[in-house]
Amino acid sequence: MADNRGGPAHDPPETVADVGEFGLIRRVTAGRRQPATTLLGPGDDAALVAAPDGRVVASTDVLTEGVHFRLDWSTPEHVGRKAIAVNMADIAAMGAVPTALLVGLACPRTTRSEVAEGLASGMWDEATRAGAGLVGGDVVTAKEIVISVTALGDMGGREPVTRGGAMPGDVLAVCGRLGWSAAGLAVLGRGFRSPVQVVGAYRVPEPPYAAGPQAAAAGATAMMDVSDGLLADLAHICSASNVAIDVRTDLVEVPRRLVDVATALGADPMHWVLTGGEDHALVATFPEPEAVPEGWRTIGTVGRGTAVTVDGGPYEGGTGWQHFR
Amino acid sequence: MADNRGGPAHDPPETVADVGEFGLIRRVTAGRRQPATTLLGPGDDAALVAAPDGRVVASTDVLTEGVHFRLDWSTPEHVGRKAIAVNMADIAAMGAVPTALLVGLACPRTTRSEVAEGLASGMWDEATRAGAGLVGGDVVTAKEIVISVTALGDMGGREPVTRGGAMPGDVLAVCGRLGWSAAGLAVLGRGFRSPVQVVGAYRVPEPPYAAGPQAAAAGATAMMDVSDGLLADLAHICSASNVAIDVRTDLVEVPRRLVDVATALGADPMHWVLTGGEDHALVATFPEPEAVPEGWRTIGTVGRGTAVTVDGGPYEGGTGWQHFR
Repeated sequence: MADNRGGPAHDPPETVADVGEFGLIRRVTAGRRQPATTLLGPGDDAALVAAPDGRVVASTDVLTEGVHFRLDWSTPEHVGRKAIAVNMADIAAMGAVPTALLVGLACPRTTRSEVAEGLASGMWDEATRAGAGLVGGDVVTAKEIVISVTALGDMGGREPVTRGGAMPGDVLAVCGRLGWSAAGLAVLGRGFRSPVQVVGAYRVPEPPYAAGPQAAAAGATAMMDVSDGLLADLAHICSASNVAIDVRTDLVEVPRRLVDVATALGADPMHWVLTGGEDHALVATFPEPEAVPEGWRTIGTVGRGTAVTVDGGPYEGGTGWQHFR
Repeated sequence: MADNRGGPAHDPPETVADVGEFGLIRRVTAGRRQPATTLLGPGDDAALVAAPDGRVVASTDVLTEGVHFRLDWSTPEHVGRKAIAVNMADIAAMGAVPTALLVGLACPRTTRSEVAEGLASGMWDEATRAGAGLVGGDVVTAKEIVISVTALGDMGGREPVTRGGAMPGDVLAVCGRLGWSAAGLAVLGRGFRSPVQVVGAYRVPEPPYAAGPQAAAAGATAMMDVSDGLLADLAHICSASNVAIDVRTDLVEVPRRLVDVATALGADPMHWVLTGGEDHALVATFPEPEAVPEGWRTIGTVGRGTAVTVDGGPYEGGTGWQHFR
């Protein structure tokens, strides 16, 4: 029986329908500071963002509940951070510095307002981490939660590093984590919640944002972020650059923590490192070993051909993730 | 009984799952030409777009099937055009020229590939109409079709026209259609498919993109696009500018076509004009009558206070549309 005897108006959890579109936007922007690049923030028809380079880098990603995240495995704050991180990693992968983010949130009317506010809070935190502003957004009704994020960035006078500039003779290097998110997913998929390091890596990737502009300044010939898995993503560089890439497993770091988790689960940690997605490390090619910047690890070589190989031969363990396939 | 006797592989309609994420992106970009502002188009981690002003205008909108569009009332091409138009109208409403669009498409695996390709085709057509490029996107699985669009624009050295600059003594003017989409919606809601002019206006709005920069150059003090309805949207200008606005119905044009449709349906055409959303006309305030540019119609005045009135008094017919309310 419903209890209507004088309690507050919202005994059931407050929903986004209770708060309303404009109320929600007011709440999630209150008390947040915009960086200097935000010339005009949320609240008007559009935002205005500084583009001192005279060119703007832009990328869009969409995350769907149940496909890209699960709210029983991650808090709304985790999901918000991840949604922003995956997209700012794309900006860094061009050699640019993230400046601004725009967010579209589609969710059911019955979504608890604390979920929407948690998503926004995580988004602000991750944007702030990279110095970017949350400058605009849209909130609409839908049957499930779908988050779209567009990130903008500034090249700072550098030339963009595409996937198409690798040359035979280049060296391959990586900056950031590989295999951690896959290990976390494996742990969660078996019903565990620890170790927290790998579970945390699945929940919130930590792309090395500053390493993108660093690599561009150091003369990287090709670069991308590892979203679908190292070998799967290297195939894009091979295809765009018309080169072959060989990954040398003796150069690839397999962290002790991953070995421990893999041993406990009966899995192969090198497989996670070579094929696991969603860590959003940056992988790049450089014209010579001396050009590889500090913080990057050389893990392979670029040659003639079109294939991605591991220790000179085909990798037999399957590669990465593709939507709809 | 399934018929497997030697027919082609795809006797049932081809789906986005059959084509795959990358196949779909290849198809919808094939044969399309990018404008000069697209320095690097789709296919890499991010796009690179010219921002000659040194600042970039950006806005995001999300459209959900069943909420913002119905594929039994509109073709995928219509929906694609509308998704782009509503967003480029926000860019024009700042006084900027649209330069680039990024699109996120979430849809079920079972979505027919011709639906996704139709959406993309309509998007390209509308972007081309305004001289902007479709520079990036993302395609993911979801339970229903959700389209997110981010539009970028260039101020061309003009100052952005916000909602907050209207002053008592200004005149109010509008450019573009009002009430047409509401009339089309009313027609479709009663099961009719004609007259085609109003149904077409519901399916694809025709924002007067060039009128935005024109108004900015002419000294508009405040501007926005009419997405939720004239009176509802004017309340945003009143709130942001701390002014009152009075709309004079003797100055408001009620096209003969709307009168005819309203008569047939027993509706009030002036109500459609004052409260109907989704035509994405531009409404702006100007410091004096002489400043109102060609193609704009003066429809009211700005005064002291905070209210939107019609002919000097409150409007009794209800106002506009707000999500979740």
